[in-house]
Amino acid sequence: MKLYEHFAENIAELIRTGTLKPGEKIPSVRTASRTHNISAATVFQAYYLLERRGLIEARARSGYVVRNNAGSLLAAPQLSDNVQARHEIAATEVDVSELVFSVLDSIKDPHTTPLGSAFPSPDLFPLPRLARSMNKALRDMSPHAIVSDMTSGNANLRRQILLRAMSAGNKYTADELIITSGALEALSLSLQTVTNPGDMVAIESPAFYASLQVLERLKLKAVEIPVHPSEGMDLDILADSLTRLPIKAIWVMSSYHNPLGASMSDEKKKAFCDLIAEHQTPTIEDDVYAELYFGNQQAKPLKSFDQRNLIMYCSSFSKSLAPGYRVGWVAGGKFSEKIARLQLMSTISPSVPAQAAIADYLQHGGFDRHLRKLRDTLEAQQQKMLLAIEKYFPTGTRATQPNGGYFLWVELPPHVDSLQLFKLALAQGISIAPGPIFSASRRFRHCIRLNYGNSWTPQIEEAMKILGRLIASF
Amino acid sequence: MKLYEHFAENIAELIRTGTLKPGEKIPSVRTASRTHNISAATVFQAYYLLERRGLIEARARSGYVVRNNAGSLLAAPQLSDNVQARHEIAATEVDVSELVFSVLDSIKDPHTTPLGSAFPSPDLFPLPRLARSMNKALRDMSPHAIVSDMTSGNANLRRQILLRAMSAGNKYTADELIITSGALEALSLSLQTVTNPGDMVAIESPAFYASLQVLERLKLKAVEIPVHPSEGMDLDILADSLTRLPIKAIWVMSSYHNPLGASMSDEKKKAFCDLIAEHQTPTIEDDVYAELYFGNQQAKPLKSFDQRNLIMYCSSFSKSLAPGYRVGWVAGGKFSEKIARLQLMSTISPSVPAQAAIADYLQHGGFDRHLRKLRDTLEAQQQKMLLAIEKYFPTGTRATQPNGGYFLWVELPPHVDSLQLFKLALAQGISIAPGPIFSASRRFRHCIRLNYGNSWTPQIEEAMKILGRLIASF
Repeated sequence: MKLYEHFAENIAELIRTGTLKPGEKIPSVRTASRTHNISAATVFQAYYLLERRGLIEARARSGYVVRNNAGSLLAAPQLSDNVQARHEIAATEVDVSELVFSVLDSIKDPHTTPLGSAFPSPDLFPLPRLARSMNKALRDMSPHAIVSDMTSGNANLRRQILLRAMSAGNKYTADELIITSGALEALSLSLQTVTNPGDMVAIESPAFYASLQVLERLKLKAVEIPVHPSEGMDLDILADSLTRLPIKAIWVMSSYHNPLGASMSDEKKKAFCDLIAEHQTPTIEDDVYAELYFGNQQAKPLKSFDQRNLIMYCSSFSKSLAPGYRVGWVAGGKFSEKIARLQLMSTISPSVPAQAAIADYLQHGGFDRHLRKLRDTLEAQQQKMLLAIEKYFPTGTRATQPNGGYFLWVELPPHVDSLQLFKLALAQGISIAPGPIFSASRRFRHCIRLNYGNSWTPQIEEAMKILGRLIASF
Repeated sequence: MKLYEHFAENIAELIRTGTLKPGEKIPSVRTASRTHNISAATVFQAYYLLERRGLIEARARSGYVVRNNAGSLLAAPQLSDNVQARHEIAATEVDVSELVFSVLDSIKDPHTTPLGSAFPSPDLFPLPRLARSMNKALRDMSPHAIVSDMTSGNANLRRQILLRAMSAGNKYTADELIITSGALEALSLSLQTVTNPGDMVAIESPAFYASLQVLERLKLKAVEIPVHPSEGMDLDILADSLTRLPIKAIWVMSSYHNPLGASMSDEKKKAFCDLIAEHQTPTIEDDVYAELYFGNQQAKPLKSFDQRNLIMYCSSFSKSLAPGYRVGWVAGGKFSEKIARLQLMSTISPSVPAQAAIADYLQHGGFDRHLRKLRDTLEAQQQKMLLAIEKYFPTGTRATQPNGGYFLWVELPPHVDSLQLFKLALAQGISIAPGPIFSASRRFRHCIRLNYGNSWTPQIEEAMKILGRLIASF
């Protein structure tokens, strides 16, 4: 991180924690330069960065002030229909795929404003640089690697993934690492390894809809554990459910949860790992947004607190670098060998050229520089979307303000039907992700997930305005 | 096909059908040139090609003569332990994966002479040309395609596959075409679409071991239908089994069968399609060796005779062009939509760059030229391996002589134990594929599959000699 980025981050932290409040002036360039003993140019660069990130704005005659930080005005979601007594938690047959597909099919049109999409804009990724890496990697590749890399995976890619894991405080070994066709294959093979049809699996409520679909495909039953909008899974209810029900596995996103954006604290992560150790419960950790954190510090994965090798840690490059390349991985703990064999019986191997290209990029392409830019962009776009919600959506709307990823979870007034809203919005060329696709029991009827992973354009501003009007019409 | 290739093929056909017999002289260059009204240079080119393919040889003072065609001396396998009364055919629990993995794991060492490998030598593929196609395709790709091509597949690749299908006499539509991560994903998703755990599936005996592993993974039972070493699946037994047993699906390789190399005749393929139409049995056709035919004419797939859309036709580029790219497809007939959805719940999509590279190669790279060369090479290597078997293996050895692919099925004297032979050979640095891995009921104990997909080197000649000695030692 460069000096100006470091300085900007210090100020951002003061804003985030409320030490600097909306409307408050921040030190002038001259003052800051003198106080911190850094050049005026560096301060300028830092303020410019904070402005781009939507945290401060220039005001005539006042210099820079902290922006009316939208998140601080919007209340956090209550997820009131997610509150259940412990004894009410039971297993649900999963039957949500039809609904999910009907939603996904209808938002494929490239002219739709993609607020319901699961992907960030491809313009955010260094695709031309990655193409150069592909070119180089294929030129250097021995013909025999095209066959031998299928079973073991590209050796350089494996090394790069292990190095990044190490520097992020995660810990797993080369032995347990399996390269997969994206994170979804990693997750799906992991779950398959530790379950049989009919088994119960604890998942989050709300949960990423693809996890519900995988459960449905594998004929597994869902035990839905409520997730707090910022603090993550309810561990009391999880503990109780593990005691009462024959739960065979847990599927969890402990950081930058999709759709809520919640992250568990380190203490909570430790407690989670104690809990699964006590019950010896195999756990699938979905950490695909790991690199998309805001602020100084990446959240630690559950895996880094796991003493018993119970966690199958799944991630990918699809959200941070190369959607469409379909390269992910799983560090499978004690289940690695089984997962590897299952892969040989399903797809054999992810694409060898894609692995080689990403390996070269990680080594030479400037991944960290790209990620810093990507995070700033996403944080700025989050601010803009929160402001638009505040401006256009009816009073009583609540929204999360995650510290990573590119999704907002928006809780609308209770009488709003998000499936109905989905249809109305689509008729206007706008997609949203309606709440019930994130639940095996079709809760969250008045909630939606919005994607802020696209450049903030007048088209998106307009779409937010239309959405606001549609919501008000209920 | 060029004129000299056409002329060479006419002569090859005369040799194959026995019109020209081993040792017999073929017309002199001058005579052939005059008779067929083609230039002497063209005849030379044709004879040179036939020589490379191992069909003729130059003899001092006699000009070119037909070679002692090895296949004509070796008897065809009898598969005697495959003969069963119809009423003995029953469902078998599949439990062969451990055995298969123990074999596959032990032959990974790159220094092993890979006669047991499932892959042909990567040197046979135009990988540098394909890398150029990758480079061009990525340069031309819009960033948005990297996301949008995930769900629909690369549009140009889809077009190229449909065009090739059309010109090969196959018939399927864009609607039913799904691009997959290699053929194995296509096959595995197809089977999953039409079965539930516990169901019975008719498979071939012997069968490609990966199909047995997929059955095992999906907890399906195998009904093993004997395959004739050159004519393919026994339709009488299949018909009887379909009547007697609740078979939910069939998995079949109707052309260039792995491991036997058998191909059904067109009449038999028609009869097969009548049979599945009568029983309305969903059928998975594995046609991965389709492009590796010897002679003039590609075998027609079952799919081209299917009036009822019951056939899920699966193939890939892994054997013909680009192993490791992991690009295959399925034309799923009436089951397409279900297959596509299952894929979205498993791996989402094959790698987008790999799809784009192959599409560009198919359009501009000279695929047909490459394939003609590849077929000639494989046919020549088959001849050399048959000659080596004749020379080094004990009397009583039988072998197939397939008209495509790169496998020989070798039936050894009945007292030879191929699992034992496998271990002895491996100790000498030679891999073979022992018969029992091709059978849910572990038949074919005295059979092996040999791969002739590698350039014929002194190392391979020596390996065949050692194998012969090991076999004789039983």
